[in-house]
Amino acid sequence: MTTAKLDVVGIGNAIVDVISQSDDAFLAAQAMDKGAMMLIDEPRAEAIYGAMGPGIEASGGSAGNTVAGIASLGGKAGYIGKVRDDLLGKVYRHDITAAGVSFPTPAAQSGPATARCLILVTPDAQRTMNTFLGACVGLGPDDVDADFIASAQVTYMEGYLYDPPLAQEAFRKAAVIAHAAGRKVALSLSDSFCVHRHRQAFLDFIEGHVDVLFANEAELTALAGTGNFDEAVAAVRRLTELCAVTRGARGSVVVTRDQIIEVPAAAVERVVDTTGAGDLYAAGFLYGLTRNLPLAECGRIGSIAAAEIISHYGARPETPLAALIQA
Amino acid sequence: MTTAKLDVVGIGNAIVDVISQSDDAFLAAQAMDKGAMMLIDEPRAEAIYGAMGPGIEASGGSAGNTVAGIASLGGKAGYIGKVRDDLLGKVYRHDITAAGVSFPTPAAQSGPATARCLILVTPDAQRTMNTFLGACVGLGPDDVDADFIASAQVTYMEGYLYDPPLAQEAFRKAAVIAHAAGRKVALSLSDSFCVHRHRQAFLDFIEGHVDVLFANEAELTALAGTGNFDEAVAAVRRLTELCAVTRGARGSVVVTRDQIIEVPAAAVERVVDTTGAGDLYAAGFLYGLTRNLPLAECGRIGSIAAAEIISHYGARPETPLAALIQA
Repeated sequence: MTTAKLDVVGIGNAIVDVISQSDDAFLAAQAMDKGAMMLIDEPRAEAIYGAMGPGIEASGGSAGNTVAGIASLGGKAGYIGKVRDDLLGKVYRHDITAAGVSFPTPAAQSGPATARCLILVTPDAQRTMNTFLGACVGLGPDDVDADFIASAQVTYMEGYLYDPPLAQEAFRKAAVIAHAAGRKVALSLSDSFCVHRHRQAFLDFIEGHVDVLFANEAELTALAGTGNFDEAVAAVRRLTELCAVTRGARGSVVVTRDQIIEVPAAAVERVVDTTGAGDLYAAGFLYGLTRNLPLAECGRIGSIAAAEIISHYGARPETPLAALIQA
Repeated sequence: MTTAKLDVVGIGNAIVDVISQSDDAFLAAQAMDKGAMMLIDEPRAEAIYGAMGPGIEASGGSAGNTVAGIASLGGKAGYIGKVRDDLLGKVYRHDITAAGVSFPTPAAQSGPATARCLILVTPDAQRTMNTFLGACVGLGPDDVDADFIASAQVTYMEGYLYDPPLAQEAFRKAAVIAHAAGRKVALSLSDSFCVHRHRQAFLDFIEGHVDVLFANEAELTALAGTGNFDEAVAAVRRLTELCAVTRGARGSVVVTRDQIIEVPAAAVERVVDTTGAGDLYAAGFLYGLTRNLPLAECGRIGSIAAAEIISHYGARPETPLAALIQA
């Protein structure tokens, strides 16, 4: 096995976020599930956009946020995801490349526009997401370059990729390549509704391919098919060797076959917008893992990265994370 | 004189900001004047964008920020400015309309793209702006609707409008209409380089048309042609009946023919990005003025609005300003 050139390659839905402040009444009027990610078509995206408040646009996408976080920590990261050759696609490519992430996937020259996620942030800092997948549905196995995957210690994939059908294939192809090269495969479960949509496929994929699993409590219990957290932990131990479970303000729990490590959350002065909390936790955790740091330290770096991201609007770091973990 | 339907109509360059963190070395390498607004063409905009870090996109434009601020305070505001019928133009229209501002100016259906301002924010929270005026050069007298101007207590114009040539005409037309309707005309000097570019035109316009002038110290002394602040204040007293001069962390000074009122700055925990500080000061001041509040109170509301805007990236309020001034 050759030395890895990259720490992590992320595969994900390449999405530009449109972030707006909102309230519970708006979510109710729009029949949105608070805290969830809903898939919407373009007419619905137009309708929600017309009804919602002023926004800011910022590159997002779960795995995209994670690799941007790894680069901000000082790690070497790459990204596979599909945009269109339109303005938002150029913005997405600029932002992830300028963050220091290698992004070789060519833009689609026809088909739907670059994906957008309309994010409503309520005063409790909770985010509710409405995703028009757009060009992401064009991501497929051809976009998975074997050398690029083999060049990374870890290939990290977001569970949201189970929604666009071709991406599932890309997913499996990448996992096979990574393992053939002696690398690790990591997966985030992304969203409990997403787990419900694809539960059996997730279970099969995790058992066959996943070395490191990321989930929050709701996603983990949805996967395990039990409302009991301890039972869910026991179930996941049978599926994979390492699982990091985020628990919001209660920090996270790192689960191995023979250990359970509790990691406290890092202090945050004011929680503004929880968008990207899980993505940045994964960034910190994987940064530590690819440097062979103890699991508790991986979790600690994850907590610090998550704390930074929830202290402001948007899911990409405002403060260089490398400085925060040294402090 | 009929009762005004609107408090303030703003006329300005309709610009989408691209905000990025930067450092002094980047400004030096790009030969940028720190703190200034520079006009750039599209190829230069592409070159700077390619070299700068990841960004966020947010609607901006000086007078646009001011009227959004007035709406956030609970006032009734309108806006005249020119975008293209492209994606950023739609974003601009959405944001200002969703903020509660009436925006009747039709988008251009041909010609240059919607304007962009590449804003580099340094760790000292100073902002350096590079503006591609794009569709703004199409703003002209035909976009000034007489009924719309006459419906507002104050017509507020940004000095930056002296750069696109047709806009100057729009400017003068609006001032004549406003005064014929018994309304007030307000002007912001915008930028000391802008004052140097158009000094005599500014002096003539202020003397002939301006009831309320906004400036910072550098702009005021540039206008007066003296480095001495007290001399500049004396000069501006001869030109206009009311002038509010912002002085950064030292607050502001409100100058009338027979009074000088010092207004302290409002407390800010951490100054992140000074973009929009003057625009939001003007919003607060005009909000107070259109409610016939004492000048010291107008300045106080201006200080509170400015303090909110400099506590985060972007030049539109994140916190409803109405709540802040009640607190």
